[in-house]
Amino acid sequence: MVDDLNRKNIKLTISYKGTNYFGWQVQPEQETIQEIIENAFYTIFNSKIQLKGSGRTDAGVHAINQVANFITEIDIEPFNIMQALNTKLPADIKIKKAENVEERFHSRFDSIGKTYMYNIYNSKTPNPFIGEYSYRVSYDLDFNKMEKAAKFFLGEHDFYAFMSKGSSVKDTIRNIYDIKLINTNNLITILITGNGFLYNMVRIIAGTLIEIGRGFKESECIIEILESNNRKLAGHTAKSQGLFLYNVYYEKTELDAFLSQKTLDTIVSIL
Amino acid sequence: MVDDLNRKNIKLTISYKGTNYFGWQVQPEQETIQEIIENAFYTIFNSKIQLKGSGRTDAGVHAINQVANFITEIDIEPFNIMQALNTKLPADIKIKKAENVEERFHSRFDSIGKTYMYNIYNSKTPNPFIGEYSYRVSYDLDFNKMEKAAKFFLGEHDFYAFMSKGSSVKDTIRNIYDIKLINTNNLITILITGNGFLYNMVRIIAGTLIEIGRGFKESECIIEILESNNRKLAGHTAKSQGLFLYNVYYEKTELDAFLSQKTLDTIVSIL
Repeated sequence: MVDDLNRKNIKLTISYKGTNYFGWQVQPEQETIQEIIENAFYTIFNSKIQLKGSGRTDAGVHAINQVANFITEIDIEPFNIMQALNTKLPADIKIKKAENVEERFHSRFDSIGKTYMYNIYNSKTPNPFIGEYSYRVSYDLDFNKMEKAAKFFLGEHDFYAFMSKGSSVKDTIRNIYDIKLINTNNLITILITGNGFLYNMVRIIAGTLIEIGRGFKESECIIEILESNNRKLAGHTAKSQGLFLYNVYYEKTELDAFLSQKTLDTIVSIL
Repeated sequence: MVDDLNRKNIKLTISYKGTNYFGWQVQPEQETIQEIIENAFYTIFNSKIQLKGSGRTDAGVHAINQVANFITEIDIEPFNIMQALNTKLPADIKIKKAENVEERFHSRFDSIGKTYMYNIYNSKTPNPFIGEYSYRVSYDLDFNKMEKAAKFFLGEHDFYAFMSKGSSVKDTIRNIYDIKLINTNNLITILITGNGFLYNMVRIIAGTLIEIGRGFKESECIIEILESNNRKLAGHTAKSQGLFLYNVYYEKTELDAFLSQKTLDTIVSIL
């Protein structure tokens, strides 16, 4: 197969504001991020691609570093592909990096871990700037109780109780490597890193921590909920607009570099 | 005049994302922030008001703490007016504070100073999150040169060279109390405080500092430009989307409190 010689596998790192889209993955009659990038590629290069994302993000969810790869035979440097795509893409979807990778690389199957960020804006008044990037909770939250509760998620657990229905996943055991809560002015940011996440898992963890912060549940309840395998014992699914896919890791060195960072970037509010 | 007994003067502190509006001030056939708030008030209370803003902000310019006041005879507590307005207002315009003030208080005439923020995003790749709140410059900027140049704006000067045409202002002398440049990742934030600002003054200062950062002008050129009274010697008018009205001051204590702050909040990027 002569053509195979020209096949290239290109890995993209993509940043997007999910507010105006129906999530990452192509769906009939809905505007999705994957489709917009594929269409932009086709418009520019007159060649079809199929993006393989590291995972879906739901409607309204943002990404700081989503990863996707695609196979192409067009003979253009990844940097130039990135520049051309960014000219065509809307302001709320941008490619941050494009690189050649081995043909067998797959964004989803080769991922060894991910970090998600969840923003809770704890204020009685809405904020035009942080509004699209956070879930506003107007009741007072006890940050210390939330922080204490978060530690119980660390390590390997069956997260069945923290998964929404509608997922076909069989193995619900996941390993949480790190969870940090950061309190800046009125903004509580959760940064959670693990080997993988179930459907809506981060949003249910956020919802449960909020209920603990309000005093409806004790910090220690996390242990029981994890053991129960009962979705009803966990908290509500916190709103999609507060969630960001922050990083996807393929090498242990990348993961370790993130976990050893002293200061972490968050969307810091201006209040 | 019996009615006068019921006249109340209410001061609002307003936060807005200017992206989707034609600026603050009411204009025929354009959607402005002033008009949207006045209309929301009318819809809720069936009573007309006229907002007096501390000053105009142009199309696309944001405000963290714009101030406006209005006279009304309706007998409702300011806090409840705020709550009702926020329910009606769009997500990108919100009232942060509402308070009773003396009848003679006027948002514009009584202001003793203002702070503006200008964000420069110095990066070769666009960013979906900071894009609407900054002016992207893809060329390398020398932060130290910009910081050095900024100091020459301090104190009382004739800022005629830093004013766009189309203003009817006669006195072009202004006093700059403070100017700070903050460099966070790829974001350069200018925070400038003075007794008042001419039309487009902050955007022309930002444009001039960018040209100094690129190496087109020396830091010391600011002295000459100020003395020249020649608009052509100053830099370009930097884009409106990077500009924020940050604070308006009515009491010296408020101004001093801001100037003595050790750490300043900026829109910190997630890069």
